[in-house]
Amino acid sequence: MQTDIEIARAATLRPIAAVAGSLGIPDEAVEPYGRYKAKIALPWLRDQEKTGKRGKLILVTAINPTPAGEGKTTTSVGLADALNRIGRKTVLCLREPSLGPCFGMKGGAAGGGFAQVAPMEDINLHFTGDFHAITSAHNLLAAMIDNHIHWGNALGIDVRRVMWRRVLDMNDRALRDIVQSIGGAANGFPRESGFDITVASEVMAILCLSEDLADMEARLGRIVVAYTRDRKPITARDLKADGAMAVLLSQAIQPNLVQTLEGNPAFVHGGPFANIAHGCNSVIATRAALSLGDYVVTEAGFGADLGAEKFFDIKCRQAGLSPEAVVIVATVRALKMNGGVAKADLGKEDVEAVRRGSVNLIRHIENVRQFGVPAIVAINHFVSDSEAELQVLRDIAEAHGSHAILCRHWAQGGAGAVELAEAVAAIADKGAAQFAPLYDDGLSLFDKINTIATRIYRAEEAVADPSVRAQLDRWEQAGYGHLPVCLAKTQYSFSTDPALLGAPTGHVVPVREVRLSAGAGFVVAICGEIMTMPGLPKVPAAEAIRIDAEGVIEGLF
Amino acid sequence: MQTDIEIARAATLRPIAAVAGSLGIPDEAVEPYGRYKAKIALPWLRDQEKTGKRGKLILVTAINPTPAGEGKTTTSVGLADALNRIGRKTVLCLREPSLGPCFGMKGGAAGGGFAQVAPMEDINLHFTGDFHAITSAHNLLAAMIDNHIHWGNALGIDVRRVMWRRVLDMNDRALRDIVQSIGGAANGFPRESGFDITVASEVMAILCLSEDLADMEARLGRIVVAYTRDRKPITARDLKADGAMAVLLSQAIQPNLVQTLEGNPAFVHGGPFANIAHGCNSVIATRAALSLGDYVVTEAGFGADLGAEKFFDIKCRQAGLSPEAVVIVATVRALKMNGGVAKADLGKEDVEAVRRGSVNLIRHIENVRQFGVPAIVAINHFVSDSEAELQVLRDIAEAHGSHAILCRHWAQGGAGAVELAEAVAAIADKGAAQFAPLYDDGLSLFDKINTIATRIYRAEEAVADPSVRAQLDRWEQAGYGHLPVCLAKTQYSFSTDPALLGAPTGHVVPVREVRLSAGAGFVVAICGEIMTMPGLPKVPAAEAIRIDAEGVIEGLF
Repeated sequence: MQTDIEIARAATLRPIAAVAGSLGIPDEAVEPYGRYKAKIALPWLRDQEKTGKRGKLILVTAINPTPAGEGKTTTSVGLADALNRIGRKTVLCLREPSLGPCFGMKGGAAGGGFAQVAPMEDINLHFTGDFHAITSAHNLLAAMIDNHIHWGNALGIDVRRVMWRRVLDMNDRALRDIVQSIGGAANGFPRESGFDITVASEVMAILCLSEDLADMEARLGRIVVAYTRDRKPITARDLKADGAMAVLLSQAIQPNLVQTLEGNPAFVHGGPFANIAHGCNSVIATRAALSLGDYVVTEAGFGADLGAEKFFDIKCRQAGLSPEAVVIVATVRALKMNGGVAKADLGKEDVEAVRRGSVNLIRHIENVRQFGVPAIVAINHFVSDSEAELQVLRDIAEAHGSHAILCRHWAQGGAGAVELAEAVAAIADKGAAQFAPLYDDGLSLFDKINTIATRIYRAEEAVADPSVRAQLDRWEQAGYGHLPVCLAKTQYSFSTDPALLGAPTGHVVPVREVRLSAGAGFVVAICGEIMTMPGLPKVPAAEAIRIDAEGVIEGLF
Repeated sequence: MQTDIEIARAATLRPIAAVAGSLGIPDEAVEPYGRYKAKIALPWLRDQEKTGKRGKLILVTAINPTPAGEGKTTTSVGLADALNRIGRKTVLCLREPSLGPCFGMKGGAAGGGFAQVAPMEDINLHFTGDFHAITSAHNLLAAMIDNHIHWGNALGIDVRRVMWRRVLDMNDRALRDIVQSIGGAANGFPRESGFDITVASEVMAILCLSEDLADMEARLGRIVVAYTRDRKPITARDLKADGAMAVLLSQAIQPNLVQTLEGNPAFVHGGPFANIAHGCNSVIATRAALSLGDYVVTEAGFGADLGAEKFFDIKCRQAGLSPEAVVIVATVRALKMNGGVAKADLGKEDVEAVRRGSVNLIRHIENVRQFGVPAIVAINHFVSDSEAELQVLRDIAEAHGSHAILCRHWAQGGAGAVELAEAVAAIADKGAAQFAPLYDDGLSLFDKINTIATRIYRAEEAVADPSVRAQLDRWEQAGYGHLPVCLAKTQYSFSTDPALLGAPTGHVVPVREVRLSAGAGFVVAICGEIMTMPGLPKVPAAEAIRIDAEGVIEGLF
């Protein structure tokens, strides 16, 4: 059997200008980065959007992730290829992978098998430099905060209340918590701080939610970086950092065009965390794709409880998007794990375990329906799946008003997802979706948190210490009460306990901490332990990564 | 009068493939990064070098820098344009500017007036991402060191003797000294460390001195990152980090091609500090240029005491390069400052001050001659220069076996440097240079330091504490004694006191600290205070940097 990398290297890619041309993008709007990557000029895209053409938006999400693997990106690629195969002009929109984790545990994040985007080495490494630009813009703001304090602190920043940390696109636990500015007066005022990974930066979320350059600069200016002693927020605009940050991001904001192994167009742009941020690709790329294609396939991070909810309540709300259909990716193996089977035993047929575990899938189907969007289930095929196991899933999906369709895009590319594509296109064409976010802007911040906790996570309630609720009150008084909320919890369970698989009930959602992302435009509620700077494992993947004299990379995937 | 940025924006650039084509580089070896930047494929360049074609190498250096400004990069651009103008096929080789300082005090570093390389915004910002790749590779190694210690420290690293810090391409004094890994057992073992700016990274020096990908990986592997309790060096290869670092640098190692405002080819590749590193563009770019052009104009950092010495003793020695001519850039204004005139009074004619200050120029002329290479003086014209002042310089240059030629490339582009170009070409064509480095590999490390201190800086001697000399002894015993030395001292004076202008004598050079750059292949001797992480000024340039809705950047230059 061929590995992902062997399949990718065997593919013949089209010149990126030809891929752009197939969408009607003229050469002068294509900024090539090598032969197979390009940024598309924002001014041209803005004019294109004015034509009023608007494709149909399809979200790919999943059941709660398990170590068995679900294949959400792979399914997104396969579905886009299959839609193109059945004559529907479709554009794929994915997130950019983070560099740091490539050297830790996981491989790349560009799909798999015959459902990949290419060139995968580039996409997984520096790509077009967007994440580096975000790192620079984020850290310039950090430097300007400490510089302001160093040179007299005219704004009266309380050095105990500087919220803005620094970022690197690296798994580096040593930087999680640091004492900075030691070494004497020339180095500033010592204080505690730390680094997050770049995908956790609010700048990343801002880039992904911005409408255009001007909106991005305005959002950057709204970032709250610190508070004064009397709790007045200090923003990036107060520090005059917003303009220079926008300059650093002026190329990064333009969406990146690549292609699937079948030569279909894919925008891969932006990649915020799906816990402390909203976990979707950029609004600019999604809008561009909608103005260029008849169908747009996009994905959201983690399972539907985190990713789809944020896609609907944050991205679609802010950007005025209306999805026509949702695909929920599930695998027999993952549902067996939800049904209590250990990873080592997944190869054995176990119909009852599938039935037990399918409660997780059912709840996601029900949840998606709460947003008014029809859901269809894509069963990502594994060779160990038995027909009896698959039939259980088909029956359960039907019983809950959906359909489950077996997909073989991993092994067959777009040809393996034609049935799914036909079903999705039929739903999207029917226009039956009546999308609405879960809650109104006017609800109090805590009520918004509680709405998600009870209606999506099916908890009894959300709970928070008085200090947390007081912080939410202060933000409401400061004019941030209209913002949506972004809940950060484990991706492995509907609850905040990663071990509670299936469809738990009776739990509560404890809000440990809240953070204001005023530039991105949401309030983060942290429920349980959330790691914003990963570490490397005992034997990092980096140890096996090499390049030979001919430039062929080994060990990265 | 037009500003640099207005001149740059008014220029019509050639498509980068056309610039490459003028050097005989075929399209398939050109990796475009946008329309006006490209990386040139290393395999093609390697084949080109096998043709045996070898142009003549010309170094542009300068007197000791002053706040009056000398214009070394501008003169390099003007000379290359002028050589092309008189029919000599010439390729320019410059260093890449650092991003961090753009947001602090200085503007960009792409030349000035009508002698610039373009596109200047790109070159001064993220360019083709090389510095970001270096930052990533450097910090991956740092993460792997702490990760190794965290997971059991099988190599026995002494956590008190981890020499490898982290880097960011940012002016951020708060990161100079930190305590890292605090916050509990999950975050590793707390220890002191800090960040340098990316141009100070040994990875930068390695990229610039490597012959090819394999040599780069070997050098990365040789980096000494720490010592055991019994002072045994631990290398990047011991940590198995070299392969992954090479992967991260596999695009960055390919040289970047851009153009001058007159459309002539320029490689802009690599940019190590000229104090704790060797301050020259990459060997790969210089070799490529020599195989493509009849003449190659390149520059070295700071004044000739630092930059030219390292160019000769480190870069030319390691890469087997033989320069044919050296251009020493001087200005009447800067020599007046060396003659004791305050900056505010530079506009007034003062022939005697020029004469007094010219001792600085004379010493640089003599120093260059010690390496067996003919030197010519380029007087970079300012409107305030008087004919009498200029004549003093011409006379002094003649009296010391050189020529001083007035250049107006800032105002006139290549046309303003034709006389210089003709003189330089005549010298280079004569082939009179008999280049040899200043000292032999076999000399002891301290004797190498002392040779530079006495023969180039004209000090009485170099002095060092016993602990420093003991460290040098240990490195000699460990097999590093054959390496050249890289002296880090102030760029403003021949001595280690930045206030001693002109041509001081009678001083001593105190070696405060020594560092091993085993991968780059030199031993650094730090003489006086050297800042490896700059800070931002009270009013950083960043505060005035903006981008408008049309994407036009203001305030960067």
